[in-house]
Amino acid sequence: MVKKSRGKNISIKDIAQLCNVSVPTVSRVINQSGRYSEETERRVRKVIEETGYQPSVFARGLRTNCANNIGIIVPDITNEFFSSITLAIQNVLFEKSYTTMICNTNEQPTVQAKQLEMLKSSRVAGIIFISGEAITDEDLTDGIPKVFVDRLPWNAASKDVVTVEADNYTGGKIAANTLLESGCKHIVALFEARGLSTQIARYSGFIRAHQDYGLDVVKELYQPVAQVSFQEGYETICKLIKSKVPFDGICCYTDSLACGALSALAEAGISVPDQVQVTGFDDISMAKWAVPPVTTIAQPVKEMGRLAAELIFKMSKGEDIEQKQYTLPVELIKRKSTK
Amino acid sequence: MVKKSRGKNISIKDIAQLCNVSVPTVSRVINQSGRYSEETERRVRKVIEETGYQPSVFARGLRTNCANNIGIIVPDITNEFFSSITLAIQNVLFEKSYTTMICNTNEQPTVQAKQLEMLKSSRVAGIIFISGEAITDEDLTDGIPKVFVDRLPWNAASKDVVTVEADNYTGGKIAANTLLESGCKHIVALFEARGLSTQIARYSGFIRAHQDYGLDVVKELYQPVAQVSFQEGYETICKLIKSKVPFDGICCYTDSLACGALSALAEAGISVPDQVQVTGFDDISMAKWAVPPVTTIAQPVKEMGRLAAELIFKMSKGEDIEQKQYTLPVELIKRKSTK
Repeated sequence: MVKKSRGKNISIKDIAQLCNVSVPTVSRVINQSGRYSEETERRVRKVIEETGYQPSVFARGLRTNCANNIGIIVPDITNEFFSSITLAIQNVLFEKSYTTMICNTNEQPTVQAKQLEMLKSSRVAGIIFISGEAITDEDLTDGIPKVFVDRLPWNAASKDVVTVEADNYTGGKIAANTLLESGCKHIVALFEARGLSTQIARYSGFIRAHQDYGLDVVKELYQPVAQVSFQEGYETICKLIKSKVPFDGICCYTDSLACGALSALAEAGISVPDQVQVTGFDDISMAKWAVPPVTTIAQPVKEMGRLAAELIFKMSKGEDIEQKQYTLPVELIKRKSTK
Repeated sequence: MVKKSRGKNISIKDIAQLCNVSVPTVSRVINQSGRYSEETERRVRKVIEETGYQPSVFARGLRTNCANNIGIIVPDITNEFFSSITLAIQNVLFEKSYTTMICNTNEQPTVQAKQLEMLKSSRVAGIIFISGEAITDEDLTDGIPKVFVDRLPWNAASKDVVTVEADNYTGGKIAANTLLESGCKHIVALFEARGLSTQIARYSGFIRAHQDYGLDVVKELYQPVAQVSFQEGYETICKLIKSKVPFDGICCYTDSLACGALSALAEAGISVPDQVQVTGFDDISMAKWAVPPVTTIAQPVKEMGRLAAELIFKMSKGEDIEQKQYTLPVELIKRKSTK
């Protein structure tokens, strides 16, 4: 009889009755919170197994007001860099039996605000922002644990927030250095225009590398794009070629911009790396599989995701976080778009 | 006083008390289920606004046993085709104030089984499978509404399931036709090996196009790959080039395989499209931005996502679905990898 219903309409009370123990005892066994004998545990687990009883996440959420559910806010899930971090986070939380709610903002602050509200009303145990640059000060103080990965909120350093980022400054410096070392003198900086924390850090590294070489950065070669996409990379370089400003290198803020740039160069019959050398940033698949493959700065995506997940897990349990700000090392991946 | 606490610890009882109405009345206003005066509605909404009260999704979930939460099971969220469908689904459900839980299976049936269990114990109102080929018959009969997008469960047609797919047969036929029309006679079929519904349909179309041309499919040119990735596309074509089997076209199961193939051809100094022509499938960004850009079959990703979301929404409300199986048209996108 019991077996037939397989979990449907079976309550924790039924389990307690069938095991001849109290409801709190069943609850303690389910949550592995101790204070029961081995014999009791075996009996309860057996009945749960036989009946197919599934403890409701909702019931658990109401009781503990902590649903083992983490919200992840992502600007663009179709961007491989972001989806890879998301995946790494989800893999770690999955192992800990935490569920995740992934929200895509389309890089729109208004959508982000709405989703944030939704996550709050779902009483998530924590929120990981992948690129939470549009967060407000009010959002930071609502009591929900938060971890910021990649792009940081404005003035994050002074705001006692938990952050995980790659060493973007060193990344920008290494990328520019690679171009300078192999002879480039007129390097386009194909960056984004919004002044994100990652953009500022990478561009600072770009400038520093020029200083170390005793070279000035050329103003006309600073090319900010409104959106980070293949299309923008392509269009910007097409225009630059038409304008006849000479350049022999392109240092790109992302691999997507670099691949768009490659496309524009190929169309104009400009050979890479002989006439123009190109670097990207992120090491998405496309960098590896482009023709020619793109020299890029790899971010430790898995490690960033793992660390963010471990941090939010601890914070959701009310544990203290000793170190709050993490900057992880980047790595140069040399390929054929540079000499 | 009330304003200060902004939603914290404010319960539906507090709202009822402040409005001088009963708790069920507040609940009816929140859920817009009628049986209250305009005056009452205005009063309740005003107090909710002022207090910043947020109805708990958990409490709602327990009461109605339907959490306005949809699970989305995806094989690989870093694959742009899958993440684009996911995004389209989430955008539609977001408009309807539904939340989504996106679970990534890494194409592993054991992980899928675990996540399915997790979604069930979260009492989701429905599940959308993007490529649910590993689903069991038992899973199909657990009473939770399900919609399958893209790859279908085995024998889906005979199983009374709700499915949304692109016209993969026609897609495979058009792709092969494009190659045949521009003179290819020895076309490699770079397909996957697991016998997914999409693979079988596209390959059937490929064969049909050959028949229409009075040409036989060459057995040695059927190249099944264990995994759909750039790497596999690259390695398979490298091996084929070494084996000296002649070929003048490559019809790929996905754009990722096509881009891997392009990379192998470039390395071997084989010119595209002059010596070998290449087609892909899906129309991910990389197809557009590859050098040369890849001729491909575009799937109506947004439409597939929208339709799946509308269907699961209706099903979650207990509404009947008249038409259960949808096959949406595909489109040839001609680019420079074919003549």
